[in-house]
Amino acid sequence: MSQLLNMDDFEAAARERLDAGVYGYYAGGSDDEVTLRENREAFQRLKVRYRVLVDVSERDTSSELLGVPLASPIILAPTALHRMAHPDGERATARATARAGTLLTLSSISSVTLEEVAEAAPGAPRWFQLYHYNDRTRTEWLVRRAVDAGYGAIVLTVDAPVIGRRERDLRIPFVMPDGVTGVHFDAPPRPAGNDSPIAAFIDQPSINWNDLAWIRETAGDVPLLVKGVVRGDDAKRALDKGCAGIWVSNHGGRQLDTSIPTAAALPEVIEAVGDRVPVIVDGGVRRGTDALKAIALGATAVAVGRPQLWGLAVDGEDGVVTVLEMLREEFSLAMALAGCRTVADIAPDLLSSF
Amino acid sequence: MSQLLNMDDFEAAARERLDAGVYGYYAGGSDDEVTLRENREAFQRLKVRYRVLVDVSERDTSSELLGVPLASPIILAPTALHRMAHPDGERATARATARAGTLLTLSSISSVTLEEVAEAAPGAPRWFQLYHYNDRTRTEWLVRRAVDAGYGAIVLTVDAPVIGRRERDLRIPFVMPDGVTGVHFDAPPRPAGNDSPIAAFIDQPSINWNDLAWIRETAGDVPLLVKGVVRGDDAKRALDKGCAGIWVSNHGGRQLDTSIPTAAALPEVIEAVGDRVPVIVDGGVRRGTDALKAIALGATAVAVGRPQLWGLAVDGEDGVVTVLEMLREEFSLAMALAGCRTVADIAPDLLSSF
Amino acid sequence: MSQLLNMDDFEAAARERLDAGVYGYYAGGSDDEVTLRENREAFQRLKVRYRVLVDVSERDTSSELLGVPLASPIILAPTALHRMAHPDGERATARATARAGTLLTLSSISSVTLEEVAEAAPGAPRWFQLYHYNDRTRTEWLVRRAVDAGYGAIVLTVDAPVIGRRERDLRIPFVMPDGVTGVHFDAPPRPAGNDSPIAAFIDQPSINWNDLAWIRETAGDVPLLVKGVVRGDDAKRALDKGCAGIWVSNHGGRQLDTSIPTAAALPEVIEAVGDRVPVIVDGGVRRGTDALKAIALGATAVAVGRPQLWGLAVDGEDGVVTVLEMLREEFSLAMALAGCRTVADIAPDLLSSF
Amino acid sequence: MSQLLNMDDFEAAARERLDAGVYGYYAGGSDDEVTLRENREAFQRLKVRYRVLVDVSERDTSSELLGVPLASPIILAPTALHRMAHPDGERATARATARAGTLLTLSSISSVTLEEVAEAAPGAPRWFQLYHYNDRTRTEWLVRRAVDAGYGAIVLTVDAPVIGRRERDLRIPFVMPDGVTGVHFDAPPRPAGNDSPIAAFIDQPSINWNDLAWIRETAGDVPLLVKGVVRGDDAKRALDKGCAGIWVSNHGGRQLDTSIPTAAALPEVIEAVGDRVPVIVDGGVRRGTDALKAIALGATAVAVGRPQLWGLAVDGEDGVVTVLEMLREEFSLAMALAGCRTVADIAPDLLSSF
Repeated sequence: MSQLLNMDDFEAAARERLDAGVYGYYAGGSDDEVTLRENREAFQRLKVRYRVLVDVSERDTSSELLGVPLASPIILAPTALHRMAHPDGERATARATARAGTLLTLSSISSVTLEEVAEAAPGAPRWFQLYHYNDRTRTEWLVRRAVDAGYGAIVLTVDAPVIGRRERDLRIPFVMPDGVTGVHFDAPPRPAGNDSPIAAFIDQPSINWNDLAWIRETAGDVPLLVKGVVRGDDAKRALDKGCAGIWVSNHGGRQLDTSIPTAAALPEVIEAVGDRVPVIVDGGVRRGTDALKAIALGATAVAVGRPQLWGLAVDGEDGVVTVLEMLREEFSLAMALAGCRTVADIAPDLLSSF
Repeated sequence: MSQLLNMDDFEAAARERLDAGVYGYYAGGSDDEVTLRENREAFQRLKVRYRVLVDVSERDTSSELLGVPLASPIILAPTALHRMAHPDGERATARATARAGTLLTLSSISSVTLEEVAEAAPGAPRWFQLYHYNDRTRTEWLVRRAVDAGYGAIVLTVDAPVIGRRERDLRIPFVMPDGVTGVHFDAPPRPAGNDSPIAAFIDQPSINWNDLAWIRETAGDVPLLVKGVVRGDDAKRALDKGCAGIWVSNHGGRQLDTSIPTAAALPEVIEAVGDRVPVIVDGGVRRGTDALKAIALGATAVAVGRPQLWGLAVDGEDGVVTVLEMLREEFSLAMALAGCRTVADIAPDLLSSF
Repeated sequence: MSQLLNMDDFEAAARERLDAGVYGYYAGGSDDEVTLRENREAFQRLKVRYRVLVDVSERDTSSELLGVPLASPIILAPTALHRMAHPDGERATARATARAGTLLTLSSISSVTLEEVAEAAPGAPRWFQLYHYNDRTRTEWLVRRAVDAGYGAIVLTVDAPVIGRRERDLRIPFVMPDGVTGVHFDAPPRPAGNDSPIAAFIDQPSINWNDLAWIRETAGDVPLLVKGVVRGDDAKRALDKGCAGIWVSNHGGRQLDTSIPTAAALPEVIEAVGDRVPVIVDGGVRRGTDALKAIALGATAVAVGRPQLWGLAVDGEDGVVTVLEMLREEFSLAMALAGCRTVADIAPDLLSSF
Repeated sequence: MSQLLNMDDFEAAARERLDAGVYGYYAGGSDDEVTLRENREAFQRLKVRYRVLVDVSERDTSSELLGVPLASPIILAPTALHRMAHPDGERATARATARAGTLLTLSSISSVTLEEVAEAAPGAPRWFQLYHYNDRTRTEWLVRRAVDAGYGAIVLTVDAPVIGRRERDLRIPFVMPDGVTGVHFDAPPRPAGNDSPIAAFIDQPSINWNDLAWIRETAGDVPLLVKGVVRGDDAKRALDKGCAGIWVSNHGGRQLDTSIPTAAALPEVIEAVGDRVPVIVDGGVRRGTDALKAIALGATAVAVGRPQLWGLAVDGEDGVVTVLEMLREEFSLAMALAGCRTVADIAPDLLSSF
């Protein structure tokens, strides 16, 4: 095995192992993949005005997110159907997340039931990502199952009222491997496109601010976050509806192509939200410095999506641990080189553009 | 046939079917084709700050343009000599436009007479694009024919006092296929360049604001639009002369190279015109998101030129329908993902630059 | 011969005909050739907000420069040693310039004596480019010869106190063909670099503002221009010393690499000089639209250097005529498409950046 | 040997001669090498508004830095383990520096003892670069040795509390040639990465402003500079602690990747420091014009790192002399072409951006 030194190496190695259709499904974005590329570029454009002569011999990368202690402010974004990457699927990812001291956000489109995932890593912090259905019964049933199984927050995806056009999937359709399915759904797999197995799981064009209030009530004491926000006004409104956190995301460039890159959207969301609730951001985070920059912009945590799948494809549970540890180590190194002892030291003055 | 998922696929497929000279004539721009490229880039640079949690289950892409009901605000820009792409020529395009619920702007340089086009799709909305001649008799004769044949507006092209240098045509001259001609003209086909068959049709260097007033009178109750405007002051003056609409265009990058891209020119025209008349824009619209952005900037409609020719070349009338439906579907998807239920919901706050 | 549709075609064709060293000497710039590239980019970045509905049927591209009537405001910049490109050398260029109704600026480093050039095209307007020598006698002798031979202005090059490092010449040294020499100099040809034949001709590191006053007096009634200015303060000072015109230039990117592109320097020079004297600009002008933009920025004329050599190499005198006519036609076309009847109509409001 | 006309030629020639691992260690940067590339780009983006008609026949490139007379304001940045490039190692570099009339900054990670280097070029100006250790005894011992051996300043590196991730070293590990070692250290060579021989030498994560004060005292009358500063506030604080100079550096792009390029950081440091102490800058200086630009921004001197190693690898002491002379000549040429007689003439008004 060639050396796996960074996330791009992991992607290349995973690509060799995965079926072309599955790889394309994981890696691709919508339309011309402009947003997919620009999510990364937006982080890379930010330059660090690092501080010197700070004693960083005892750095603490640990953080906290809505009461969840974290080894670092790098958590897992929800990604679908892990069993396409590895037979152990989300069980492996959950165990790896626990070993790495971070937080799993289980996708609704899991290939292992949320209860089995909970059993696989009982003490580990976990959140549940939710899609909304016109049939409130189903939505309610899923939320209650997640609450009962100890999921600590519900993360409602709001950037997918319909599915984006992922032309890679249409060119190289992926076939669900035998026995792999979205276990929280009865719907049988269907061909690619908006008729794809994935589209079959998601059918929430009617979701709106009123539903948010209702889901909020359904979740009871379990906090609700909205994922997919890129505007300050939407973030504020979510707070007004009782949301406990805002997740800045454009679905990894898989929904509206040419949408604003998340690193560019983050500042207006931070400004709107202030210190009232945590803000999480995903999209293009592939280096410890990306995480540092997001925190400097005011995010509480960053989430990584695709890298967990590359780790899983390369070496199952251990691969995910390696990926998460690598990111945490890169983040620790970035903190040291930027003159930050703790996550709280990572301030906006560290950033410049060039 | 390989998959035709987007406009670029259609172009590639059309290229395989068309004579190289004809393809070059359709696809090319002037000089170094800077404007041809930048028209697309100008749209791609605009980023969308989409809205979330809007009920988009019942979206309405329909629009209206000077009394013409449209399935979406995507109409057809005038393009020349459709019989070079398909034997049915403009008849097929007209029928397809009717089937797709949109508006044809027939070019003066049609290869089918305007009356035959009208007969081919009797109930369909159609406008007529006009070049001006020093011989007012001919201009008047064409306008009256168009009015008599039920063309709902006259679109006067003003960005072509002379023909731009299209070096592709000079390198690979196109030969008019047997029996194809610009049927509204007596002039016989001539070789490429400013001596080309096309140049033979257009000879309007003297056209000026006074002519505009005269054409306006000639058209009587039929509204007159000017196509090729890129400045606010020119747009205002056109309104003063009684124009019913402004069409922002740089002739698809085929006239003055390094002219301002239309998406960059649109804001100053919108500001000058306000809500008084509709503003249409063409140039580089290849995605539903491009149309969304143009509307967000204040345009009433966007027009697509070359894509109709690619559809025609690939599959005649059905090809054009497919192209138009694909664009409308992409536009509907973009609306959904941007949180817009109706075309009226598409507002300037959706845009950002990056 | 493949089609020669534009200046780049002429360069490619000339390259095939010329000795590699000679081509490199003509085409190259200094160091990393950053300025060589950016001179062209600076023009291409400017975008034209063209005007419509202007009667351009009778356009007049003619212009005037210090009393010299011009077919268009496109003149010839001084370039060295034309006999390396064609046996007729500067004689051919002078005849072509006369045929094209424009102005030759003969380089001091001519391979034909200034008197022979004058004889070759007796009635044609011609200026003489001057390098300054520590030996005032030689400088005075050359100026007087030029004045006596009817050269209408002296153009003093001020951006070459020493020769720039042209690494192309060092990698592929050019050898002066038999019998070709800088005829205004006694110095024998020497190897490349600052010991090159060219460097042997130029040795003016001491030139300064005081010399300018002296040269001004020496030229008597013949106006003096300075060529190589990129700053407003230098331009003002030159006017104070009695200069009759400013020539904005960075020596075609052959002197200080990463110097400001001329299209970027032009506005500050225009602002400093106002309407007092004409401003000429060279560097990267390869299209009629480049000339239009320079005039819109306030230049009185543009000068082209290398293209005359490509024309000469391709077809001698006729080649130069073709190049000059092509540029004038492109300029005329750009005027028409920008809505300008006369050179005076070309105003700053035509420009925008994108 | 192909022609060695500039620093890039020297790098290419050195690459051919060096072991791939050694070349990679010298040439590489951290992570994605964004800062490595952008250091050069930041200089190249600055454009020179050169002055004309200044008598530059007698130019003086000489400068002075904290009492050290310099042939030009181009000095040597500390670089490690010269014996990997040439058997004579730092001895050769020191002799070359003396011959070129400039200043050596000897790295702590020298492969020749500081005393031997001093002996090799007794009269030559030399500074000593210092890493700090938790063990104050070792730090003190090194400082005293340097002071005793006539090193005129101590340059404390502050941008390396931990070692950056240099993935090139991890992909192609370099092996210390037989007999080459970091002679100021007892630690035996170890494998690549943070366990690399280099990492073994550097272990200073605890270093902070208090240590700076203590090192300052230890150095006694010998001035102390800090190297690796990119912020105005850090520069000011260093002055408050008694530093005699600020060295703007990001360790040649080898530490925090995507840190601000040094040419972009320089202005804020200059603004903070004013005229109180000299400011040195390194990172991406490969041309005489780069040096000119740094001086124009307000730097007192620029330092070059890698080019000395390329010279050393190509031709030992003579190679380093060639490199240094070449840079000085390019700088002299840039001064001449920018209209500067002396280093003091190089002012901020020479710069523009494009």
